[in-house]
Amino acid sequence: MNPPLSPSQIPKGFTFAAVHSGIKRSRLDLGILISEAPASAAAVFTTNRVVAAPVIASREHLKESAGKMRGLIVNSGNANCCTRADGYPASIATTRRLASEIGGADSSQFLVCSTGVIGAPLRVEKILDAIPQLARTRSSEPGAFEEFARSIMTTDTRPKWTAERCRIAGRQVRIVGCAKGSGMIEPNLATMLAFFATDAAISPGLLSGALRAAAAPTFNSITVDGDTSTNDTVAVIANGQSGARRVANTKSADYRSFSAALTRACQSLALAIVEDGEGAQRVIEIEVRGASSDRSADRIARTIANSPLVKTAFAGADPNWGRILAAGGRAGVPFDPQRTAITIGGIVVCRRGREYPFNERAAHKKMLAKYVPIVVDLRSGHGVARIWTCDLTGEYVHINASYRT
Amino acid sequence: MNPPLSPSQIPKGFTFAAVHSGIKRSRLDLGILISEAPASAAAVFTTNRVVAAPVIASREHLKESAGKMRGLIVNSGNANCCTRADGYPASIATTRRLASEIGGADSSQFLVCSTGVIGAPLRVEKILDAIPQLARTRSSEPGAFEEFARSIMTTDTRPKWTAERCRIAGRQVRIVGCAKGSGMIEPNLATMLAFFATDAAISPGLLSGALRAAAAPTFNSITVDGDTSTNDTVAVIANGQSGARRVANTKSADYRSFSAALTRACQSLALAIVEDGEGAQRVIEIEVRGASSDRSADRIARTIANSPLVKTAFAGADPNWGRILAAGGRAGVPFDPQRTAITIGGIVVCRRGREYPFNERAAHKKMLAKYVPIVVDLRSGHGVARIWTCDLTGEYVHINASYRT
Repeated sequence: MNPPLSPSQIPKGFTFAAVHSGIKRSRLDLGILISEAPASAAAVFTTNRVVAAPVIASREHLKESAGKMRGLIVNSGNANCCTRADGYPASIATTRRLASEIGGADSSQFLVCSTGVIGAPLRVEKILDAIPQLARTRSSEPGAFEEFARSIMTTDTRPKWTAERCRIAGRQVRIVGCAKGSGMIEPNLATMLAFFATDAAISPGLLSGALRAAAAPTFNSITVDGDTSTNDTVAVIANGQSGARRVANTKSADYRSFSAALTRACQSLALAIVEDGEGAQRVIEIEVRGASSDRSADRIARTIANSPLVKTAFAGADPNWGRILAAGGRAGVPFDPQRTAITIGGIVVCRRGREYPFNERAAHKKMLAKYVPIVVDLRSGHGVARIWTCDLTGEYVHINASYRT
Repeated sequence: MNPPLSPSQIPKGFTFAAVHSGIKRSRLDLGILISEAPASAAAVFTTNRVVAAPVIASREHLKESAGKMRGLIVNSGNANCCTRADGYPASIATTRRLASEIGGADSSQFLVCSTGVIGAPLRVEKILDAIPQLARTRSSEPGAFEEFARSIMTTDTRPKWTAERCRIAGRQVRIVGCAKGSGMIEPNLATMLAFFATDAAISPGLLSGALRAAAAPTFNSITVDGDTSTNDTVAVIANGQSGARRVANTKSADYRSFSAALTRACQSLALAIVEDGEGAQRVIEIEVRGASSDRSADRIARTIANSPLVKTAFAGADPNWGRILAAGGRAGVPFDPQRTAITIGGIVVCRRGREYPFNERAAHKKMLAKYVPIVVDLRSGHGVARIWTCDLTGEYVHINASYRT
């Protein structure tokens, strides 16, 4: 899933480092991703009303310095959320120390992210003490990026990274990205974090548009348990060091090429997150088509993807189309069940809202695969949506029910 | 939980019967609740877009005969849903046979309900063949009502019934009720069914208003897994045989008295359903107060009550208030987390949006109880809501993931 990266895949002008600062017992828990030159940056953050301090700090920094960012710092093991009086100063102190150690930079040129248990005080001095070592050991080697990817993990069972390329007017542009989720934190909250570095030359505004467009059908179309964390962050930093010409506007071929590569990178990591969903045995792709609008299709697909009854049926590889249809029916979107057709792994199991004779054993076998595509065709319009989810297993409950102390 | 009923608790003029018709392997699977005289009736049905045939038939019958209903018939083991061409005629044939066996009645004077696996053809001849025996053996004995309560069970671990009384102008009025849910069906869909018989004299319109008002804070405020079935039905039949004067209007003391008794009966059965939730170890009461409106409070309470992260923490008796606050934060309702206070079993665990020092061991112990009250106080208005849910355990997954064949 994560083939080793080669030096040629790393975007030019970036360095990375990771360290064990002592927030977690023994694993890497602090990492940096640095552009050696000022860079464009864009990010999308959690929509939860409860927002962690680092998200507040990062939003401010992005506003102040989106066109001249220098990188980001991430700790795992503590979300620095619901730690109000101390939380925000801790995030600011972190970016200040990083700026002074990197040199020639201001604290507002760095994003700061945290993931881990919420409500527990963050021992920020451990982070501050570890920053000099991070700055000193940073490197553009693929191994350094892989360590960075490891340092943001919580209960992820494996690191997740990806690399993409595109050509802009004959010059090669690189993107690397890594993500964490949907592991729980000690166990507490599923935070999704994803970071991309690219040597494309692009303005913060265009970069933000490309990131939003890329996140919608990827990170915003996956669900493990329907819970949105207080710390979710997807960020991209573009430093222009590829030497490729600057992306001009959203209509240009350059933008389309870059945007497509960024979307592929997001897609790869989004699926890796679902695959590594807590207790998950398989990824289920829910495609709803024939809806009255894309929005209706999306609501129905999400309701199906989050239904505990549907997700437990997936755990049992049970081709239980009745649960799928009934979950769709409670999405609050009008449709005619009597026109609806459902296929599971390519096998038609329901047509015109009633059972279509199928081989249960064959369908069961299809559902034992690592990747199961489900199509729900409402046959009453042109609206389409795709959502990726995973099955709900006893292991998920086990991971999340264990008493913390 | 279900104390045996005494004959004096059974409303006058009602009879009950149950039988094993052969839809289920060996247990009671068909029951009737009959008023010996024409009666007022009211019902609320599923809001799912996918609606079972008996729900369609019952809605029609209620429209035609709400003031002169004679009773209802319920089968378990098959939901008669997504069985389109054959489903509706099967429901109609059932009420026809019942009408002819009861005598002096029309088919439209009966409601018909089904619960069980969906999408499987209903062998209606088994039902039709069993109806004569049902009609013949019907009785006003408490034991007959208890058997009726058993006949509507699917994977419920126990029958659920309740009895209430109220006084109307010095005369006693009785209500008995029974419910099933949220068991799965072979396993397929959690259907919630609840039926009430009362000897109050009340018009169908007033009865409908009283039922709707009683269902909102009870049956509509519980959740086991957020899934709404295709067959959910709550019905009440009032035959006036108590001899108490007719309830005049919604402003009268009689209406308030009756309405309060009906609400208590609904409350008792609603909690019994959550208690018997699949795999549930405990009932959690989520009270949200201090919201900008009751509606906002309701949305936040429901989001918390359906969060898999919150429900698994309950399974582990983990006083994980961070998950509660974060679930509230994604309800799509504005509030200020920094004003929010949370108590678990009376212990303050969060104040002003951050941890309030508490004894983890004591809170853990409180959460091991059968009934755990949680209060989330947003401190920014007067909106209040209460939702009852249960914990999400490995047993829930086990019940619902087992492959059907």
